[in-house]
Amino acid sequence: MEQVINDQIIQLREELEAVKNKVTLLENARKDQLSMAIVSGDMDKILAAMVISLAAAALDTKVKLFFSFWSLSALRDNKKKAKGKDFISKMFGIMLPGEKNKLKLSNMNMAGMGPLMIKYLMRKQGVLSLDQMFREAGELGIEITVCEMSMNLMGFKKEEMIDYPNIRYAGATTFVAEASESSIQLFI
Amino acid sequence: MEQVINDQIIQLREELEAVKNKVTLLENARKDQLSMAIVSGDMDKILAAMVISLAAAALDTKVKLFFSFWSLSALRDNKKKAKGKDFISKMFGIMLPGEKNKLKLSNMNMAGMGPLMIKYLMRKQGVLSLDQMFREAGELGIEITVCEMSMNLMGFKKEEMIDYPNIRYAGATTFVAEASESSIQLFI
Amino acid sequence: MEQVINDQIIQLREELEAVKNKVTLLENARKDQLSMAIVSGDMDKILAAMVISLAAAALDTKVKLFFSFWSLSALRDNKKKAKGKDFISKMFGIMLPGEKNKLKLSNMNMAGMGPLMIKYLMRKQGVLSLDQMFREAGELGIEITVCEMSMNLMGFKKEEMIDYPNIRYAGATTFVAEASESSIQLFI
Repeated sequence: MEQVINDQIIQLREELEAVKNKVTLLENARKDQLSMAIVSGDMDKILAAMVISLAAAALDTKVKLFFSFWSLSALRDNKKKAKGKDFISKMFGIMLPGEKNKLKLSNMNMAGMGPLMIKYLMRKQGVLSLDQMFREAGELGIEITVCEMSMNLMGFKKEEMIDYPNIRYAGATTFVAEASESSIQLFI
Repeated sequence: MEQVINDQIIQLREELEAVKNKVTLLENARKDQLSMAIVSGDMDKILAAMVISLAAAALDTKVKLFFSFWSLSALRDNKKKAKGKDFISKMFGIMLPGEKNKLKLSNMNMAGMGPLMIKYLMRKQGVLSLDQMFREAGELGIEITVCEMSMNLMGFKKEEMIDYPNIRYAGATTFVAEASESSIQLFI
Repeated sequence: MEQVINDQIIQLREELEAVKNKVTLLENARKDQLSMAIVSGDMDKILAAMVISLAAAALDTKVKLFFSFWSLSALRDNKKKAKGKDFISKMFGIMLPGEKNKLKLSNMNMAGMGPLMIKYLMRKQGVLSLDQMFREAGELGIEITVCEMSMNLMGFKKEEMIDYPNIRYAGATTFVAEASESSIQLFI
């Protein structure tokens, strides 16, 4: 009789271990993490991305931003120059906004009047500027991954990019792998 | 011998309780809920947001919409006026669409011809109008949260906004906190 | 005494079964799956959608794309014609891009110069063309669902759409139901 009870206990233990492993997998599959793919380079979209990112970081959510296509303009540093660019890369460099403070609005840009109005209102309302938001993002450990394919397409070079503590260069696979573990994913 | 068995059972119970607690945490971490951050104020984007929201509500998914930036135009009530606005707020009020029926298309707007065509086609195909969609959303308990920072930036006041049963005013932190528990999150 | 132990074991088993069922529900609630609602028809947005989709498929993530509104242009086949269209449907057909290679950029379109530059750079950098991406998507089993309401609104017909192995026609409810089970959801 004791043998029967022992067998039952052993079986319960095995099943419990199996459930525990599944629960661990589930826990790892959904981290308290925000993944954002930022494709747009409009001032309002970058502002929205940064406001959401800082709010998430304040809630102790790990934040991982993937910058690609037009959003690369927000990472350019006007004061840095890169050499050895071909003709088309130089053209892109001139035509695209040279830094985050020169981004356009997706709407009501009005030849630059719209962004000026928004910046004036942000200052007046005590909202952080984009520069301040990026600085705070760096301090809060928000990670920025720059899309390598976009860098190549637009002919941007690493030495033109802003100084940022957690910046790295990788492809879309990295975004997808990290996003699939994140509790929040957004495409902006 | 009995003592040994008793100890094993006690240990199994403790481990089972620990697993149960983890499972409860996991269940609470992902509710059958749709969180949407709506930044765009284009007619087509607002339409897409409402179509998806109503489809989700019909599937008994809780829906929480966070309206910010340009999307605030969709929540304005043309017939309501607010007093005590400064110059820039008045300008924004005039330049931005005065209500959801005056939204522009992101594409093919053609000075208002595009939206008219879409509205004509929606009526012809028996698709609900934006007015009807918002009314149904209210009846289905879809919650609308209006971004306070956007209200301040654009100088909109609560008394200018549409009558909607589940409307409240809060910041991006609220969006992030609710989105992290949601099974679906979208940025529009 | 033995009876007591037996009762305890039976109770443990029952509770363990209850936990197992909950874990199975949680596992089914979040599949390794990417759901994308693609509303934009800009070349850069469609490119981003396809790059992310192919990266996900390469990571063995199931990919389900829901094409609606402007993105339908990316699914048109220029060489196919549909009969029996009314006047407005014909107009839409003429005004919207006739196939994925005629899509515009959301930014810097410059009357078609921008897309030409991007295509040139993509070829030079060895990036797949949109045609190649759709072919690979079909081979990797990426599913395309076309929004029926958008088809009706714009007057597109099934016989005008590209040949694609996993194409079907359905509504937003289908998107929401599948997205709620997906580990990644994006709105583009």
